[in-house]
Amino acid sequence: MIHYSSIGATGYVSGELLRMMVAHPETELDYVADTFAIGTKIQDSHPQLVGFYDKEIMPLDDNTLELMCRDSDVVFIVAPSGEVSQYAEKIIAAGKVAIDIGADIRFRDVEVWEKWYGQKHPNPQLTYDAFYCIPEVFRKDFPKGQKLISNPGCYPTASTLGLYPMLKEGCIVDNTIVIDAKSGYTGAGRKPDLNKLLTEAENNFCAYALGGVHRHTPEIEQNIAYIQGKDLMKPETWQYINFQPHLLPQIRGIEVTIYATMNKDYTNEELYELYSEFYKDEPFVHVFPQSRAPQTKWVMGTNFCSITPTYDARTKRLIVSSVIDNIGKGAAGQAMQNMNLAFGLPETTGLMVTPMYP
Amino acid sequence: MIHYSSIGATGYVSGELLRMMVAHPETELDYVADTFAIGTKIQDSHPQLVGFYDKEIMPLDDNTLELMCRDSDVVFIVAPSGEVSQYAEKIIAAGKVAIDIGADIRFRDVEVWEKWYGQKHPNPQLTYDAFYCIPEVFRKDFPKGQKLISNPGCYPTASTLGLYPMLKEGCIVDNTIVIDAKSGYTGAGRKPDLNKLLTEAENNFCAYALGGVHRHTPEIEQNIAYIQGKDLMKPETWQYINFQPHLLPQIRGIEVTIYATMNKDYTNEELYELYSEFYKDEPFVHVFPQSRAPQTKWVMGTNFCSITPTYDARTKRLIVSSVIDNIGKGAAGQAMQNMNLAFGLPETTGLMVTPMYP
Amino acid sequence: MIHYSSIGATGYVSGELLRMMVAHPETELDYVADTFAIGTKIQDSHPQLVGFYDKEIMPLDDNTLELMCRDSDVVFIVAPSGEVSQYAEKIIAAGKVAIDIGADIRFRDVEVWEKWYGQKHPNPQLTYDAFYCIPEVFRKDFPKGQKLISNPGCYPTASTLGLYPMLKEGCIVDNTIVIDAKSGYTGAGRKPDLNKLLTEAENNFCAYALGGVHRHTPEIEQNIAYIQGKDLMKPETWQYINFQPHLLPQIRGIEVTIYATMNKDYTNEELYELYSEFYKDEPFVHVFPQSRAPQTKWVMGTNFCSITPTYDARTKRLIVSSVIDNIGKGAAGQAMQNMNLAFGLPETTGLMVTPMYP
Amino acid sequence: MIHYSSIGATGYVSGELLRMMVAHPETELDYVADTFAIGTKIQDSHPQLVGFYDKEIMPLDDNTLELMCRDSDVVFIVAPSGEVSQYAEKIIAAGKVAIDIGADIRFRDVEVWEKWYGQKHPNPQLTYDAFYCIPEVFRKDFPKGQKLISNPGCYPTASTLGLYPMLKEGCIVDNTIVIDAKSGYTGAGRKPDLNKLLTEAENNFCAYALGGVHRHTPEIEQNIAYIQGKDLMKPETWQYINFQPHLLPQIRGIEVTIYATMNKDYTNEELYELYSEFYKDEPFVHVFPQSRAPQTKWVMGTNFCSITPTYDARTKRLIVSSVIDNIGKGAAGQAMQNMNLAFGLPETTGLMVTPMYP
Repeated sequence: MIHYSSIGATGYVSGELLRMMVAHPETELDYVADTFAIGTKIQDSHPQLVGFYDKEIMPLDDNTLELMCRDSDVVFIVAPSGEVSQYAEKIIAAGKVAIDIGADIRFRDVEVWEKWYGQKHPNPQLTYDAFYCIPEVFRKDFPKGQKLISNPGCYPTASTLGLYPMLKEGCIVDNTIVIDAKSGYTGAGRKPDLNKLLTEAENNFCAYALGGVHRHTPEIEQNIAYIQGKDLMKPETWQYINFQPHLLPQIRGIEVTIYATMNKDYTNEELYELYSEFYKDEPFVHVFPQSRAPQTKWVMGTNFCSITPTYDARTKRLIVSSVIDNIGKGAAGQAMQNMNLAFGLPETTGLMVTPMYP
Repeated sequence: MIHYSSIGATGYVSGELLRMMVAHPETELDYVADTFAIGTKIQDSHPQLVGFYDKEIMPLDDNTLELMCRDSDVVFIVAPSGEVSQYAEKIIAAGKVAIDIGADIRFRDVEVWEKWYGQKHPNPQLTYDAFYCIPEVFRKDFPKGQKLISNPGCYPTASTLGLYPMLKEGCIVDNTIVIDAKSGYTGAGRKPDLNKLLTEAENNFCAYALGGVHRHTPEIEQNIAYIQGKDLMKPETWQYINFQPHLLPQIRGIEVTIYATMNKDYTNEELYELYSEFYKDEPFVHVFPQSRAPQTKWVMGTNFCSITPTYDARTKRLIVSSVIDNIGKGAAGQAMQNMNLAFGLPETTGLMVTPMYP
Repeated sequence: MIHYSSIGATGYVSGELLRMMVAHPETELDYVADTFAIGTKIQDSHPQLVGFYDKEIMPLDDNTLELMCRDSDVVFIVAPSGEVSQYAEKIIAAGKVAIDIGADIRFRDVEVWEKWYGQKHPNPQLTYDAFYCIPEVFRKDFPKGQKLISNPGCYPTASTLGLYPMLKEGCIVDNTIVIDAKSGYTGAGRKPDLNKLLTEAENNFCAYALGGVHRHTPEIEQNIAYIQGKDLMKPETWQYINFQPHLLPQIRGIEVTIYATMNKDYTNEELYELYSEFYKDEPFVHVFPQSRAPQTKWVMGTNFCSITPTYDARTKRLIVSSVIDNIGKGAAGQAMQNMNLAFGLPETTGLMVTPMYP
Repeated sequence: MIHYSSIGATGYVSGELLRMMVAHPETELDYVADTFAIGTKIQDSHPQLVGFYDKEIMPLDDNTLELMCRDSDVVFIVAPSGEVSQYAEKIIAAGKVAIDIGADIRFRDVEVWEKWYGQKHPNPQLTYDAFYCIPEVFRKDFPKGQKLISNPGCYPTASTLGLYPMLKEGCIVDNTIVIDAKSGYTGAGRKPDLNKLLTEAENNFCAYALGGVHRHTPEIEQNIAYIQGKDLMKPETWQYINFQPHLLPQIRGIEVTIYATMNKDYTNEELYELYSEFYKDEPFVHVFPQSRAPQTKWVMGTNFCSITPTYDARTKRLIVSSVIDNIGKGAAGQAMQNMNLAFGLPETTGLMVTPMYP
């Protein structure tokens, strides 16, 4: 039985982690902590958990952290940018596993983080100690006994899985990748803001972070560099991409449509075969033919990723549609998959649940 | 008073045309005809029109067509692919104006149409007689006394207006344009299909026509060619683009995000100035700065188009977001604007109505 | 030309008032004031108004109020409970018309207000001076030259119009009325609260104010008493009703389903005839037969009310479905109708606009 | 291991049954049959099942039925009104359990069925052999070895569970019950109809079957009679209720608001205590206090029912809000619960899964 705790208790990602863990047969929750709602029950924040947990939210202080370090095998961290290292340090110092679902330790080169996140990094060493892991891509290099895991961003997960097979094939022309991404509103967090009200957002659609300024851009570029075998400490050698996000009038789900110029021709059927073969041992990746573009609801509430690759011979462009649940495979689900990986369990343990459809 | 009739009565575009015409002070409806629902009242199909019209839907036969040709000044045609010419011929032969909201006569070169629409064109001469018109772009060449007008497609309208200023500047690198488009479900018509049910479509998102196969692709390429002064009868001289549509879980609204490599650098501010200046005399086009990406609900139920142009200096790409209401500026609204243009009225007549927000 | 101003500028009702006024041919906006967003443009808060107004929001202070009293013929007031009188007093003292869209002066007997709104009434005299007006019901008593008008609540408007014909017939058994009401989220205002986020509210439905505690209950009871000719200063003589509201996962629209035991039998056809005849001169009320229950989208963005009356002979109950747009006929639209009434214009002036459907 | 088959394969209830069964540790699917989509895979109709089943849909003929009767322990039936008996007869004749999710055998007195469903009953004997079962209410009379089970309707389940404690208390005044019900669109089935399109239904709300004509009315009346110990063969002794359904712009979920005049006074707290105590051993029923009205999304995808009881002392009316997932506890989930009951498993087996929220 793996004992786990959660730093962060009231947001959507924490709630989804606790919800998905209900189906995991080999875990047990110790503590949840947050900076507010302290003393209330988990189910007061998360009505989906009524009847499933009966714990109170603890203050996010030294005492709680000590209890977690003492009793838990793994601690999941969902915290604001720049605040992770204070928790992660202590957890790994106690010999426990820390899985950070935030962005603090996602870049090998802290300068990339500092540039895009606009802060001085509080603990560069921690970032070197971390292992960033989309299991389907990075698992082969997963260090035995790794204590600190950086859980990838939602958009980078969907984008990287959509690009991975063709990058490995080596037939994408440098600097031609454009990723047009769309996300449900859980991706924007649970803090009440005007633009997130149903009255503003429903039956509506818009871009945001227009013009190449979204922070997930360099994370995808780093993943591409990794797949291409480039030096992650030399971002000047990476290729540039455009990543442009939009907000969908729906709760969950990310779709990315990836465009890239190819140096080789394929038929749609060949691409389907190639992707299917490439991912044939990956239980969380489903590949579909050109006639069946994936829908975000096909993966809702799960750790699955559905991908349809196509090719336009007129323009010599690869066009791939890749979907995940932003708080499933894009956050909580992948964190569980990484936990399974770190603890030597089958990666699918507790994660072979059906999506909610319709 | 302009007397008008409508071929097509029960679909979303016909309903929106009749709805928008209520606000037009100088038109009067003569006849509406369709191939079914004959003998029922307009408001039985369109509850938004209860209290505004009291006409019956007539059979779409020779007799009705004769009455239209006799009494109406203009006839709007919404009909399936390949069926338009039979109506349009008679209307213009009677000296009346025909505005075709379908795709039959949108291409100067019928071979382009035949290739993408997979049919033999029933009447190539008609297509030569037609004038395709997004007023903001083509009005300068609008022939005096023009009787046959081809109303543009929804996606091409949003895309062309987003590209127009930069194409005129001449700084877009050939064959680098990628258009990622998203549309509400009215764009898929009113015929009951499984995938259009609320239970399937709500809280869901997907691509369709994946891989560069959507029929609006060559229409946008023709518009680009027109703006660039190329020969519309020589499609082999046009540049290729990628146009990829998606379905939004909402009723109305199109957003297109346009990507194109530039041969010149701009700041976001310069682009905003350039677009604002370019469109300053266009009452239906609103330009916004980088910080304010347009939302589809900003134009709902109207003939407006809202555009935000940006530039990513890292990748040297223009990134433009352009939104319209697919059955407003994308169909019925633009048809009314074209009618105003054809009859010498101010183009804004009857069209300066507010969008429905929230 | 009627000059008007608005106290309250940034909320949904103020925005809808300004939006609907665009279609009114005989009004001109002078000033809008609020307690925040001061100095910003109206269209910064209301994207639907881009291109229609170019005014700044003024501070809600004595100076602004003085300008309104000096220049405007009518001032619309949207303000928190208990704050209206301070504005209304000055406006009517200046001889201008004040239309209060809030609840402060809706009860003839201030004790009813004080009990349900939990405050001491700041100005009982003002409440006696006010005329509460659903035009279809109260217009016959509208005092010539009336300066202070209390605009009814959204739920009471839909409920009262649904009950009115049968109450006039005198065949509803006392104390048997149950009203089950459902409203879109604009009814809950524009303040960002957790429960109003799309992520919480979409694809979701719930009751609120469960158990007979909603403040619109006595307003409906007062209207019933008025129709039945009872003394509005003697609430102890009124009959009791149950009014139970719910929140719909949609932006606009109210539906109320009214249940009442009858002392006389009707067929559905007789009820349809009776309601149709009763409302035949009311341009804003549409009556439908049993087979066609009204939909909230049939009235979206308008001042219309659609009603279907039915009768269940087994249980001897009247069952009526009545729909309005909560911020149209339920607020801004009715305020305009009341303005038209006060200024001697046809009540339909500027209000015969089509709903947005689909 | 319980072997099961399903008559009906492509609709929402069949899909949900197959989906929920994935979490059941002691069942195995044998066959699925339908009248169309024959030869296609289950996951072609139900994308949520990709990776979970790999069976083909078989023709719904004698041969398939024979295989089911031979190999399966239980067969679930989802079939049109009037068609169930032909399947059910053979299954129980083969000594296997049949669980009918339709309405054919829900009434002890076939005359009630014939009157409300407008057909001659094909097999009255079958209806006498069936045991109708909402486990929380009827389990105490569940006959040992019962082979034919009638699974209750969605609305009757939510309504009966909401009324049950007070009916047992005996303090509801006869003939005063009014049930105002709201359902998501999965309740209307998967057949493509115009009114179910997202474009028609989204952001919209309406009543249907207006005026006391919905077929679930007598089913609820029969349940009330059962709880009150009345003779189910004497419908003339039952009390009358009003049941009025509406359609919500959402996928799943039913909320019923129940109104009934009481012969005794309660405080809200007393009611909460009473309901909590009453249902304290029911794992699928959650009771909430007046301040927390249940939301349909709290039970999405599950077999749970959430209930908030309140009392209005002014009107002496009980007001209860009760929510279920119409295809969960309202269909597939309850069918699984009944299967567990019939096979002697804990009723919760495979059913303690979390709802999808947000």
